[in-house]
Amino acid sequence: MENLNIGICGWGNVATGLFKVLEENNTIIHQKTGCNINIKVIGARRNNPKCDPGDVIIERDIFDVLDHDIDAVVELIGGVDTARELILAAIKKGKHVVTANKAVLFHHGDEIFLEAKKANVSILFESAVCAGTPLIKVIQEELSANNITKIAGMLNGTTNFMLSEMEEGSSFEEVLKIAQDKGYAEPDPKFDIEGYDAAHKIGLLSSIAYGTPLPPDNFHIEGIINIKKIDFDYAKELGFSIKHLAVAKKDDLNIQLRSHPVLVKDNSYLANLKGVRNGIEIDTDLLGVIHIAGSGAGQEATASGLISDLINLMKTNGVFSFPDFPDSLNTIDIAELSFKYYFYIEAMDEPGVMASIASIFAENNISIETIIQKESTDGVSPVILITNRYFEKNVNKVIKTLDSLASIKTYRTIRIED
Amino acid sequence: MENLNIGICGWGNVATGLFKVLEENNTIIHQKTGCNINIKVIGARRNNPKCDPGDVIIERDIFDVLDHDIDAVVELIGGVDTARELILAAIKKGKHVVTANKAVLFHHGDEIFLEAKKANVSILFESAVCAGTPLIKVIQEELSANNITKIAGMLNGTTNFMLSEMEEGSSFEEVLKIAQDKGYAEPDPKFDIEGYDAAHKIGLLSSIAYGTPLPPDNFHIEGIINIKKIDFDYAKELGFSIKHLAVAKKDDLNIQLRSHPVLVKDNSYLANLKGVRNGIEIDTDLLGVIHIAGSGAGQEATASGLISDLINLMKTNGVFSFPDFPDSLNTIDIAELSFKYYFYIEAMDEPGVMASIASIFAENNISIETIIQKESTDGVSPVILITNRYFEKNVNKVIKTLDSLASIKTYRTIRIED
Repeated sequence: MENLNIGICGWGNVATGLFKVLEENNTIIHQKTGCNINIKVIGARRNNPKCDPGDVIIERDIFDVLDHDIDAVVELIGGVDTARELILAAIKKGKHVVTANKAVLFHHGDEIFLEAKKANVSILFESAVCAGTPLIKVIQEELSANNITKIAGMLNGTTNFMLSEMEEGSSFEEVLKIAQDKGYAEPDPKFDIEGYDAAHKIGLLSSIAYGTPLPPDNFHIEGIINIKKIDFDYAKELGFSIKHLAVAKKDDLNIQLRSHPVLVKDNSYLANLKGVRNGIEIDTDLLGVIHIAGSGAGQEATASGLISDLINLMKTNGVFSFPDFPDSLNTIDIAELSFKYYFYIEAMDEPGVMASIASIFAENNISIETIIQKESTDGVSPVILITNRYFEKNVNKVIKTLDSLASIKTYRTIRIED
Repeated sequence: MENLNIGICGWGNVATGLFKVLEENNTIIHQKTGCNINIKVIGARRNNPKCDPGDVIIERDIFDVLDHDIDAVVELIGGVDTARELILAAIKKGKHVVTANKAVLFHHGDEIFLEAKKANVSILFESAVCAGTPLIKVIQEELSANNITKIAGMLNGTTNFMLSEMEEGSSFEEVLKIAQDKGYAEPDPKFDIEGYDAAHKIGLLSSIAYGTPLPPDNFHIEGIINIKKIDFDYAKELGFSIKHLAVAKKDDLNIQLRSHPVLVKDNSYLANLKGVRNGIEIDTDLLGVIHIAGSGAGQEATASGLISDLINLMKTNGVFSFPDFPDSLNTIDIAELSFKYYFYIEAMDEPGVMASIASIFAENNISIETIIQKESTDGVSPVILITNRYFEKNVNKVIKTLDSLASIKTYRTIRIED
């Protein structure tokens, strides 16, 4: 297929970005691929002062886009419910779908893929995970001979920016303000800083690597809102950095899916990716560890991924091979996984505070690898410790005890990622 | 295409690796892609005691492989001349070609691609650059909407291993021995340590990104054999690390192609990739800087790349889009490029040695950013300096002067990469 006629649904930032890149880089795209992408129709509820669509037909009802003579629909309306309806309607009409919408795929992916398979159309979504940074097709095609044992990454640029700044000495509140001023974080930052955005992304990667369901079961999701800047100092003293990691990992019969803060060794690849960048580590049997990093956001970066999907549609003539995974892999609850744990504990400053904290761990059969007591201030003694490796359900017993003791003023815990 | 019948030409390490991986990971490959790859025939001049090909037909003359009912030939015989003949013969018979042979493509790529285009068959070579680490299809497809302005990488694992060890304090001779003992370097290591292997790889990447010819013109190739361990100490003192970099860079009307040692800032991405790993940095207009790193060698890693090509053949039904670049881009001679330069100069220990060295640079209109004189030993004064940015043709005048002076015992220079 050398010509592809497309309709774009949605006319916000991402859609106008795609429109502009297709105009500006048209020659480059044709030179490299021999493909022509023609925008036939745009579904725009209203005009966008930032972009003049020229002669392209405008439909005010996005569903009317599907009635035009187009090969593929680019769904850029965002959100979940209407996007799901639009994608399913496009599939019914035999149109291929390209989408940057991670939320709709996370919540309704299995339904959408099943309908697409029945209708023999493609669903492509490179931009849904870290925009155009090459990940989806790398896992689906380039690594397809490999047994992938783990995918772990910093998949949310906002969170990574905030943690990098906190490591330099800012407080959570200060860096959230900076992130919002720079446009990295939304006015309501919940989706980013509570771990959901990264969870959506790793959920999609896990579905293509392991066939886990969409929506997934047993997904542990936790954000960065409880981390204090002092934790970075203690982590550093112990040889670690603090990152927010999204992980999909396979061991024999189980898959683990999780999105939460971790301590990682401060000389590791992931520890050294700072700022708004996204970075991912893929462990494979044939290729060893692959690292991929890029800037995973912005209208141009998203356009890059959308266009790579459109090129792929043309090169494959729209024939999409849906993976066919066995059903035997369970998604395991985080309580059944084992980690080493970092604990920060503030106890009332009394003689023998370190001994009494150590005994709480000992009574629950959790042994300690390292324990440090810091100088007390305002009648409070901070104790920092790292446990040996235990199942989370056992470490939860310690947490229950800490919760019940009046002498413990506050505590925080962060898992350590190997 | 759901079934692909292939013939393998060559029966050494890489070929047996491919055979084993297709056997062992067959289920995974089918689950993820729906594709079946069937080895119909192997061209093996002799048996390989490491691998039993079972019922697969063996041809002792590799050219006889082409007469079988196969869709694609996997060329793994290595070398240049016979590989070229074999590939051209396969193309004439309408067979697609997958190859891991960078040398044959570097020297005869343009001829091979032209013949393939005429015959309407695909030429795929993911494994020719850093084995299965995703690079070729990433540039050809995933980044096809981007204007790529620079590709720079450590593309030779042996060299990167050796420089990493020298940075830790070993001499060139010591690390070459270690690299040979570990099997990273060949008994005749010339191809790796003199920069040719990395040059072949960046030559291929440049051809797909910019359409530069194969073989390329004006390619500056230089190895690591003149670097001494003391250079790492001085580089470190100045805030740099020493790497061997292969670079393809576009600016307006010119392409630069070069493979040589460089000083890079010691906190940069490339400086921090140590050991046998390969790492690459791709500068783009839409995605910013993309980083990809992996282990770019070994039979399994190569098999991974070969299989990704075979899957790609099936997904695209063997339809390959040959890029069509304009002819207007020149490959520029390195004398016309500008860099900052590191100089290590040993002069006879006389009063005013630093002043007299500085004056050599001044007389040639090359200004110095930093200059350090070290304690003299055995009547020799080492001076280390970094110049400001100048065209290489002008810096060459300084080198000519240094060559002519009896008071200069030895000197070395390394370009600084921004």
